[in-house]
Amino acid sequence: MKAVVKTHAGAGAELREVPLPQIGARDALVKIRAVSICGTDLHIFNWNNWSAGRVKPPIILGHELCGDVVEVGKDVTSVKVGDYISAESHIVCNTCDLCRTGNGHICRNTQIIGVDRDGCFAEYIALPAENLWLDPPEMPAEIASLQENFGNAVHTALAAPLIGRKILMTGCGPVGLMTILVARAAGARAIYVTDISDYRLALAKQLGAALALNPTRDDVKQIILDATNGEGVDVLLEMSGAPSAIRDGFDLLKKGGAASLLGLPGKPFEFDLGNLVVMKGITVYGIAGRRLWDTWYEARGLQRGGAVDLTPIVTHRFKLDEFEKAFAAMASGNSGKVVMIPSELTEE
Amino acid sequence: MKAVVKTHAGAGAELREVPLPQIGARDALVKIRAVSICGTDLHIFNWNNWSAGRVKPPIILGHELCGDVVEVGKDVTSVKVGDYISAESHIVCNTCDLCRTGNGHICRNTQIIGVDRDGCFAEYIALPAENLWLDPPEMPAEIASLQENFGNAVHTALAAPLIGRKILMTGCGPVGLMTILVARAAGARAIYVTDISDYRLALAKQLGAALALNPTRDDVKQIILDATNGEGVDVLLEMSGAPSAIRDGFDLLKKGGAASLLGLPGKPFEFDLGNLVVMKGITVYGIAGRRLWDTWYEARGLQRGGAVDLTPIVTHRFKLDEFEKAFAAMASGNSGKVVMIPSELTEE
Amino acid sequence: MKAVVKTHAGAGAELREVPLPQIGARDALVKIRAVSICGTDLHIFNWNNWSAGRVKPPIILGHELCGDVVEVGKDVTSVKVGDYISAESHIVCNTCDLCRTGNGHICRNTQIIGVDRDGCFAEYIALPAENLWLDPPEMPAEIASLQENFGNAVHTALAAPLIGRKILMTGCGPVGLMTILVARAAGARAIYVTDISDYRLALAKQLGAALALNPTRDDVKQIILDATNGEGVDVLLEMSGAPSAIRDGFDLLKKGGAASLLGLPGKPFEFDLGNLVVMKGITVYGIAGRRLWDTWYEARGLQRGGAVDLTPIVTHRFKLDEFEKAFAAMASGNSGKVVMIPSELTEE
Amino acid sequence: MKAVVKTHAGAGAELREVPLPQIGARDALVKIRAVSICGTDLHIFNWNNWSAGRVKPPIILGHELCGDVVEVGKDVTSVKVGDYISAESHIVCNTCDLCRTGNGHICRNTQIIGVDRDGCFAEYIALPAENLWLDPPEMPAEIASLQENFGNAVHTALAAPLIGRKILMTGCGPVGLMTILVARAAGARAIYVTDISDYRLALAKQLGAALALNPTRDDVKQIILDATNGEGVDVLLEMSGAPSAIRDGFDLLKKGGAASLLGLPGKPFEFDLGNLVVMKGITVYGIAGRRLWDTWYEARGLQRGGAVDLTPIVTHRFKLDEFEKAFAAMASGNSGKVVMIPSELTEE
Repeated sequence: MKAVVKTHAGAGAELREVPLPQIGARDALVKIRAVSICGTDLHIFNWNNWSAGRVKPPIILGHELCGDVVEVGKDVTSVKVGDYISAESHIVCNTCDLCRTGNGHICRNTQIIGVDRDGCFAEYIALPAENLWLDPPEMPAEIASLQENFGNAVHTALAAPLIGRKILMTGCGPVGLMTILVARAAGARAIYVTDISDYRLALAKQLGAALALNPTRDDVKQIILDATNGEGVDVLLEMSGAPSAIRDGFDLLKKGGAASLLGLPGKPFEFDLGNLVVMKGITVYGIAGRRLWDTWYEARGLQRGGAVDLTPIVTHRFKLDEFEKAFAAMASGNSGKVVMIPSELTEE
Repeated sequence: MKAVVKTHAGAGAELREVPLPQIGARDALVKIRAVSICGTDLHIFNWNNWSAGRVKPPIILGHELCGDVVEVGKDVTSVKVGDYISAESHIVCNTCDLCRTGNGHICRNTQIIGVDRDGCFAEYIALPAENLWLDPPEMPAEIASLQENFGNAVHTALAAPLIGRKILMTGCGPVGLMTILVARAAGARAIYVTDISDYRLALAKQLGAALALNPTRDDVKQIILDATNGEGVDVLLEMSGAPSAIRDGFDLLKKGGAASLLGLPGKPFEFDLGNLVVMKGITVYGIAGRRLWDTWYEARGLQRGGAVDLTPIVTHRFKLDEFEKAFAAMASGNSGKVVMIPSELTEE
Repeated sequence: MKAVVKTHAGAGAELREVPLPQIGARDALVKIRAVSICGTDLHIFNWNNWSAGRVKPPIILGHELCGDVVEVGKDVTSVKVGDYISAESHIVCNTCDLCRTGNGHICRNTQIIGVDRDGCFAEYIALPAENLWLDPPEMPAEIASLQENFGNAVHTALAAPLIGRKILMTGCGPVGLMTILVARAAGARAIYVTDISDYRLALAKQLGAALALNPTRDDVKQIILDATNGEGVDVLLEMSGAPSAIRDGFDLLKKGGAASLLGLPGKPFEFDLGNLVVMKGITVYGIAGRRLWDTWYEARGLQRGGAVDLTPIVTHRFKLDEFEKAFAAMASGNSGKVVMIPSELTEE
Repeated sequence: MKAVVKTHAGAGAELREVPLPQIGARDALVKIRAVSICGTDLHIFNWNNWSAGRVKPPIILGHELCGDVVEVGKDVTSVKVGDYISAESHIVCNTCDLCRTGNGHICRNTQIIGVDRDGCFAEYIALPAENLWLDPPEMPAEIASLQENFGNAVHTALAAPLIGRKILMTGCGPVGLMTILVARAAGARAIYVTDISDYRLALAKQLGAALALNPTRDDVKQIILDATNGEGVDVLLEMSGAPSAIRDGFDLLKKGGAASLLGLPGKPFEFDLGNLVVMKGITVYGIAGRRLWDTWYEARGLQRGGAVDLTPIVTHRFKLDEFEKAFAAMASGNSGKVVMIPSELTEE
């Protein structure tokens, strides 16, 4: 089969012909319909420090996917050939203390596809059957491929109650954009957002942000204080990882408020924990991945009930062998979600 | 001033001329713009057993109101003459253990206006300034008068998480109807409702109920199991107080689910606590009043952000001296919320 | 091997020679050191209505055990031969919606050993390896056999916060007695208990109950109101299933309080849900089994840290072929926990 | 009356004769039995940067006290002359959004005695009656004066569940020492502590710490990993404010764990929010003051039920005119709590 492979320690990747994956007794083989690109994929593609320390080439990239089950191992009962599925990208051990206490999403022995073992930027992938999630037949492939990433948005948005609250969301990348949809569906009173990409701010505004501010141009602090009677916001949803956004976000949070942090600062930075967290009585939620499988059920319910429609999130579509263009679109900041379709290969 | 007074122990009430109320140092005098009728008012009007045991005539009826502050006591700083307000109907002591631990809504020494002291079906009312809630000038009076009762809906709906969940709501009186709006705003996946009034079921459907069932005609259990893949619902919102609705509601609740109970059965009834609560691992929330003032803030946020619009809830409007017609409309089952306007007296 | 078998639909059981159980790829074979008798075992032994509707003879009784792993299936990695273990008695599917959302203890497809499949009142038992829990070598067998049942106490006691609170516990059977120990360890201010067995009340007092009352003799309501300045208790832990105890327990609960219900009333009964739950703003937790595996971790922590010592709970010990005496001791009401030792057979 | 007064902007204080305070209609006058010194008092005494920016001399120092009500204003009903009381040091507005939603402890308009208005290192103090807390007559004055500060320990310890958990507490000042007592009472499995004062480590050990480590000498990280099977701790209670302790504490926290932060770093510092909070899925609770009045009720329950005995916390006692010696003892690091007795003036 064709696959996008990181062949060596360094930037870039190659489209290669590789063997079809084998499945074990509890696995399923999935023929992929669509995949989508995550910020993590971009880090690995560009081979940043974190990637260099963790990823062992050669490896097939990618962890967001949907597809059809084409073969199942002999012990599999939860899915069958023909099922249309999305997949949880974290393969967990089910035996560590964290897995056994409802914290499988931060399992001590997690393997992430496309990071620790072969991923989904390919025509097929083998996965433990327990990692598969049934999609309704009518769901478009480009939406089904987003489910795993949508889970990050759901997990972050729902860590603290949003109902009737004023929210500041810092960072409008694809997960941030989906988070706006969740926050609206969850009854937020107003969602103020910041980003440095005007493309993304325009998209955020279209998705329902009450204010979409560019800190390179707008006096974010003053505008949000004005919008909140000088009180600040109830909840901070931090999706950027930028130290300045984090600091400003906590500064604008009212006393007793909550901050849910998904964005990853690349390294330590100066932070005024005393004044911004302790004295204000703030609760901070570090958000890793998606809860297994609570988040998936909530994500499903939000979509099936019509409260969230992910259609406007996908802004770019490519064939699999156009992966370099796809990564470039994702890197530009001028995109929502970027999807690739493995069955559409230019050369075939 | 004119007021609707329960003059003696027994059914009915009279429109009477009574003295203008006096205010103390921490009170405010409110000129009433609109009042609305609650099920409790109807019980007192009809003089049911509960009323006979608690209410001491003569007393002015009514506890849902909005109006304008026309005078304030010397120690009042939180409101001023000219403010447009709704009011919390429970006057609490602020000193008991419950008040001191965030449970003022179930204060040991509560006095409810229209129940334990003079109410608001009148041209004026005197209230502690701390019971007043500022409304925006543009809010219509008939909506402002509903705020207190809307708080019951908010308190009930938000006791358990609704996001992405399937909900069964039993009882579509005015509070139930408002609860549908809150549940939708809170991201519920589907809201199934039951009532014996087709008028109210039609209104419920219009407000967003996915299924509006009449147990006198529909096989509620089968229809809801069909709608939920045989699993039942995640959350029960019980607004009817009817033993059969309560039993069927718990029966349709899935294991591990939650039930929020606002409806008041008039007396003890046979209930299978073992099979319906213990064995299924259900969490039950008894809902009394509104949380002071958390619920009010949530109610405000839901309306100001546009997630909830109460306009369709008010179906009948009367002058104050038409109170008998107003009570009859409320008693008919063929109404949403019934509002009266004290300034519009037929005889003046 | 020898096993206590319910051979037919009806009261009683027999000690029989049965084949050694076979294990599958993910199972372990356990040589049993000690077993203990639960109220459920007594119901099945006596063949009450519930048993008649659920249990299919022939079946080996019993679900509380400890022992040593003597053989493991080929896919087992979590335990090894020689491990000393207790066991969770609920064998769950890991694939239903409840299992996938942290509610495995109420799995839709649970099989309970000794109820739905062969149990542990025998020399050996085959169990899924994932159901085993490692015990420290120094833990006495009669304590290790109690771990599963101790989990019921931990789950019930910790559903609501007890710290600094006044508690009423109704029902001092073995689980209730263990619950006293948990409530003390959790920082309860005072634990008031009721039972109709003076033997158990004496044991409760010895374990730390502040008041141990017999409703056939004591004016429970008056005594507890006196002990709580007329306010009632913060938390009710209901372990009896007796309608009168449940009613009185809710009656003594203060407004805003919490009730955790483990006891199972055998059938529906008259209950004043309106006055006892709704109007008082009570939260009720139905408690089923133990959380997998949160409760087990908490149970372990409580014992290893020295906060709970289960030694005084075991009051009777028998050989396995004395099972009729053991059941009689359990039925008498004059016991704490009753343990049997399979390796000690009179006839060998 | 005699009072310890900060007379000017700068280090030190003076014992002065000042007028007896006047009370308003809702206030009480308290004759002080005992006061205790807090770290904040020491900062003000030494006139650190924070003090210079907030405190306006002249002002009477001190905010931890107990005493007897000797006069009440005309509207006071909650206390009476002769009552023996402790006091909440935060005087709040009861009208801001935070006060109205159960967050009075972080009221927008808080005035702290001894910081923003005259404090209690004096013979008398005037306080709003609602700030007083009734003590039992048998409680020693030096214990009653600690109640406010004990509330910090209770608030911090109980933010996350401790039952059966392994805890790391960084910082063994007086509040830390009291926190050990609360954590034990709350069922913690093991409490590991760090401090740089061997005096305080010895006291911590005596109060029940499983390990008392000095980071200037011990390899804290290795020792705690060894004690926790390499897993780290479940909960971090941070009482020191030292950046190195905060970093090491988060580093030793297991994934999914919780950190409650009371210690105040004096300024921003480098912190690896991404790896230490986000990726690990940590929940962080900023702890300010004590919850009004939930914490006070829990504090009372813990003491009255015998779960906590504060007696060993008080290590030094002085007369009020020995305040310089008292501050020196507090500053030395070789103390638990330092108490002063206003009625015992050397010169009288």
